[in-house]
Amino acid sequence: MDEFGIIKKYFRPLTMGRDELLDDTGVLPPRRAGEDLVITSDSVVEGVHFLSSASPADIAHKVLRRNLSDLATSGAKPLCYQLNLVFPEKPRDAWLAAFSGALLKDQKKFGLYCSGGDTSGASGRLFVSITAIGTVPAKKVLRRSGAKPGDHVILTGPVGDAFIGLQMLTKQIKPVHENYFVNAYYKPVPRTANVETIRKYAAAAIDISDGLVADLGHVCEASKCGAEISLVPGIFSDKARRVGLKPAKLLTGGDDYELALAVRPRHSAPLLKALKAQGLKPVKIGAFRKGTGVRVLDQNGRKIDLQKTGWRHF
Amino acid sequence: MDEFGIIKKYFRPLTMGRDELLDDTGVLPPRRAGEDLVITSDSVVEGVHFLSSASPADIAHKVLRRNLSDLATSGAKPLCYQLNLVFPEKPRDAWLAAFSGALLKDQKKFGLYCSGGDTSGASGRLFVSITAIGTVPAKKVLRRSGAKPGDHVILTGPVGDAFIGLQMLTKQIKPVHENYFVNAYYKPVPRTANVETIRKYAAAAIDISDGLVADLGHVCEASKCGAEISLVPGIFSDKARRVGLKPAKLLTGGDDYELALAVRPRHSAPLLKALKAQGLKPVKIGAFRKGTGVRVLDQNGRKIDLQKTGWRHF
Repeated sequence: MDEFGIIKKYFRPLTMGRDELLDDTGVLPPRRAGEDLVITSDSVVEGVHFLSSASPADIAHKVLRRNLSDLATSGAKPLCYQLNLVFPEKPRDAWLAAFSGALLKDQKKFGLYCSGGDTSGASGRLFVSITAIGTVPAKKVLRRSGAKPGDHVILTGPVGDAFIGLQMLTKQIKPVHENYFVNAYYKPVPRTANVETIRKYAAAAIDISDGLVADLGHVCEASKCGAEISLVPGIFSDKARRVGLKPAKLLTGGDDYELALAVRPRHSAPLLKALKAQGLKPVKIGAFRKGTGVRVLDQNGRKIDLQKTGWRHF
Repeated sequence: MDEFGIIKKYFRPLTMGRDELLDDTGVLPPRRAGEDLVITSDSVVEGVHFLSSASPADIAHKVLRRNLSDLATSGAKPLCYQLNLVFPEKPRDAWLAAFSGALLKDQKKFGLYCSGGDTSGASGRLFVSITAIGTVPAKKVLRRSGAKPGDHVILTGPVGDAFIGLQMLTKQIKPVHENYFVNAYYKPVPRTANVETIRKYAAAAIDISDGLVADLGHVCEASKCGAEISLVPGIFSDKARRVGLKPAKLLTGGDDYELALAVRPRHSAPLLKALKAQGLKPVKIGAFRKGTGVRVLDQNGRKIDLQKTGWRHF
């Protein structure tokens, strides 16, 4: 099967009936009045963002969900995405079926379609880049820059599970509840189902895929303030706590796709209540303050020294 | 300089003052009434789409212009683009300055801005993926599927110059007018300035970056018809003709960014006249007909056998 055969068989179904997208350009659906479109991109490369042992479904879930998480960060619902693939070599049918099947499953789960893309090869390394488009009520997009001193720092769920998954996958630590942790690494759940609630109560948002401390630092920088967080109960999952890695590792390891939110104090309780009702395990971990930077306190109120704040590519 | 420093110094200027795009998501400008948005993607990888000897400016021009050509194919004007980069290693300042400088130059030339993107590394190979967004009057998007038997096949300019450029770069043939041909390879001119005229007169369009015969074949397939073209004067540039490569090579080599258009016979003369007035060298090379596939005739009306119709990745 050649390139065009592959596109027809495996990628056409991702347009969910919009066959005109097989042209080089897709047309976005007419925008509804009072709606803004937001756009985001995220790429993954073998050996950098996923292990060579990753299954095609793992890769598909991870790259699409990373993008959906960025949409959720801005308070947007998913609309569609462009899929750009460079294959390391001519791909096998089983690989293509598993990869495109996983994308289709996520499309249905999260409510979006593939608006087009690009395939090429052969480069020796798998490269997948997705650009996703979402919709948000006009002028309601959530930004990093909306935090104020006094705002609470609320996480939509515990951090560190994905980092533990990666440590288990790379045999750095003994596997316990391995499926749970590996799923956190490869199949994070972007918070797209919770964006109405988040938009209603949060003043700023970011996802914490680069590591909680680093990403919270981005909010501080954009909002011209600092933050202080501490190791409150619920910041790590019970399973993570039992693994026994140092808290500093879990706070800075990255690959988590919970959101860190800045929330005015009066909105804190209703937000926590609403997110819990939606099945999440949100937790208030601290507050924004005057100054700069993120300070992390342990259970006893002592400052933790962090050697790094998050993932850096270079 | 770390990743975030690099983004600030070299990529922030590409947003042309829209600093909010440094968030993970960008907001598209409000759409005007009566306007559709179109979306397209194209990626390039070292060793596949450009040579390891390519300069950062060559790479920047090529990948952005490939996308702009796809927008032109659909009759759209450029609006913005997402820039996704995976660096082979930590990039040097001089490389970043030249790469981002070339993008900024093209942004000004073609009238668009960078709406965001993603950088990561280090993967051992340079990957650049761009997703571009354009605007077109509502329901006026040009498609591959609009050709009818009897329509003329019109090229917006001669084919084969880029293929000759590549042959010279790879020392397959002796360099003559090397700058001219290498520019055709690395700095093709997307036909975005001519889209109003093209939309007015053409019934279908495609760019011929995979090779004229292959891409014309895509139009035939989508339009459920065939086409017959011949080696008329003007199908190759005078410089290309003097290089003396076989016509079959020039027709199928790829990397050209002229458009192949299907044009109703009554629109043929006004289209040719208008494009000439805009400084192009358009040429009528044949007609669509009943049946399937693309037949190529030489100057004497004899069928040319093509071993391949265009570029295939695998």
